[in-house]
Amino acid sequence: MRDTGELKQRIDTCLRRLVDEEEAELLRVSGDLAPLCRQLRASLTRGKRLRAAFLYWGWRAAGQPDCEGVIKAAAAMELVHAAACTHDDIIDDSRLRHGAPTAHVAFAEGGARSWNTAAGAPEGARQDRSAALAMMLGDLLMGYAGQVFATCGLPGAYVARTVPLWSSLLRETVAGEFLEVLRTGGVVPKVAESLEVARYKTAKYTVERPLHMGATLGGAAPRVLDAFTGFGMPLGEAFQLRDDLLGVFGDPAETGKSNLDDLRDKKPTALLAVTASLLSASQERRLREVLGKPALDEADVAHVRRLMERSGARQRIEDMIQERIAQARAALESVALPPEARAALGTLANSATDRSL
Amino acid sequence: MRDTGELKQRIDTCLRRLVDEEEAELLRVSGDLAPLCRQLRASLTRGKRLRAAFLYWGWRAAGQPDCEGVIKAAAAMELVHAAACTHDDIIDDSRLRHGAPTAHVAFAEGGARSWNTAAGAPEGARQDRSAALAMMLGDLLMGYAGQVFATCGLPGAYVARTVPLWSSLLRETVAGEFLEVLRTGGVVPKVAESLEVARYKTAKYTVERPLHMGATLGGAAPRVLDAFTGFGMPLGEAFQLRDDLLGVFGDPAETGKSNLDDLRDKKPTALLAVTASLLSASQERRLREVLGKPALDEADVAHVRRLMERSGARQRIEDMIQERIAQARAALESVALPPEARAALGTLANSATDRSL
Repeated sequence: MRDTGELKQRIDTCLRRLVDEEEAELLRVSGDLAPLCRQLRASLTRGKRLRAAFLYWGWRAAGQPDCEGVIKAAAAMELVHAAACTHDDIIDDSRLRHGAPTAHVAFAEGGARSWNTAAGAPEGARQDRSAALAMMLGDLLMGYAGQVFATCGLPGAYVARTVPLWSSLLRETVAGEFLEVLRTGGVVPKVAESLEVARYKTAKYTVERPLHMGATLGGAAPRVLDAFTGFGMPLGEAFQLRDDLLGVFGDPAETGKSNLDDLRDKKPTALLAVTASLLSASQERRLREVLGKPALDEADVAHVRRLMERSGARQRIEDMIQERIAQARAALESVALPPEARAALGTLANSATDRSL
Repeated sequence: MRDTGELKQRIDTCLRRLVDEEEAELLRVSGDLAPLCRQLRASLTRGKRLRAAFLYWGWRAAGQPDCEGVIKAAAAMELVHAAACTHDDIIDDSRLRHGAPTAHVAFAEGGARSWNTAAGAPEGARQDRSAALAMMLGDLLMGYAGQVFATCGLPGAYVARTVPLWSSLLRETVAGEFLEVLRTGGVVPKVAESLEVARYKTAKYTVERPLHMGATLGGAAPRVLDAFTGFGMPLGEAFQLRDDLLGVFGDPAETGKSNLDDLRDKKPTALLAVTASLLSASQERRLREVLGKPALDEADVAHVRRLMERSGARQRIEDMIQERIAQARAALESVALPPEARAALGTLANSATDRSL
């Protein structure tokens, strides 16, 4: 299992099998659930399976052997992630993820009437059918995640001691997302608040907690859990900072998602916060003017991009990423781990923060 | 524990304690989560605790004694229900539940910017912050439900054998809701399709599965589970049919919710389906005309109400309720149960379908 590609393949296979089972259950309820099944499958087809990989290597770092039970527990992380992405894409009205239509967009294209077409309807009757269907898909994925985790096949005592972490992960993710929504749409975020969102929404959720869950399933010592916090938090922040850069400067053909939405939605990213902190008074006034518009056009986005470049903010975020990766690597060195696990975690650290994401 | 009021009080107390704990966890993350905490508490303050009661009496029917563990497992059902209601209220844009503002309405009133105020924004930037915040609250409640159930304190083997039912409950509820959304907004539903939605969205979710979960936790014999299906499915349908009547003919001061929304949203209720089946060709044409309007005014609603009365549909639904209650009672008589459990289930059958709900 040195090859991260092989692990990804096993997670993919496990998810496919789970989708087959769940699809059969749903179609037993009603054939009319076929669109739900299609989007269930689509939502689990793509992805780097980073969260699953962190859970898996957390388990291996505890000295446990490779087995099918941990693959299933790791697959549960990807079900959580698919649920979170489905709801997140509704909130952001994102059109694309991994180059494919998001669930609410796919439901709308499949003929579901959307709120837009019911714009003349009174408040009480307004309906966003496609968003509603996608919200249900997210709920289904989340419920399924819990079941897959609970029945992963590892000993009951291992699963039981990991339940509190499972709920921490869900709580922290919702908290991070809630804070982000609260802080979205304001003109210029503060760096500390942006990083707080990144910590809860990304660092804990993507790296630290999956590692903790694998390690706790495997019965790792407290010092391993501590080292995983020291490794996971800066790495997760670096991951979010990279995502912020790609959300503005990325090539949609490579990232599979828009490079306009973060700015148009006025996401409270650290990139935007750092930019504001580096501008002259007149530049900052101009930035606030542009971001204060109800709708940013392409020229506005281009203007903000230039400010991010020229102010040195883009480079500053690159520096912050490198600082955090160095911190993460140092934490990894600070604790005794099985060599294979250490090597895999090093590879994952690169893969989570590389430029094409 | 003969008094259902006493059981409700114990569930309420347990939920209050759980909210206190969760609130402390959330505020440890950030003080900015105070609005989330307020709505978490509000979403769990009111309710008849029917689902908790069915789980509790399923357990007692299995011959198990009263204990705090089953109260906590039962409280988990109410967390699921609060989650489902929160998401359902977003979908229906319901303003009131149990006489209090729904979560997304409360978040909007608390100053969250809504989609409406960002109407000029381009597609990608459009945001319904209050709906997004309420969606997150629902996700939090659902995750918390799973944790509370997993850590209810009953023996691990009892909980483990109930996990498959837990996921059936979640799957069936999402399936029922998904089917309802798919079938909402069409002009006239078919009776069979309306009853199918009622079976999954209400009968299984509100009565059959909570009973099964309690009984399975308690290790009941298969014939008890079968009897609970025979009792729970017709009773749950009756519950939904009563809800359909209250959704059109109820007094908002008593029901705590609108009596216009079901018709304005063109909910695919059995009441509407039965009405259509009893009308003359010209009356049905008129019904379709009224329901075909993008927005129904009060006069339209009054017209449809009159059609429901005069066609005999309202009375037919009353008859269907009574038939189903009789069926449920007969199923309850068909199996040997501890007298206290039998009496309590009889009382719950009344309480679930009485006229003031």
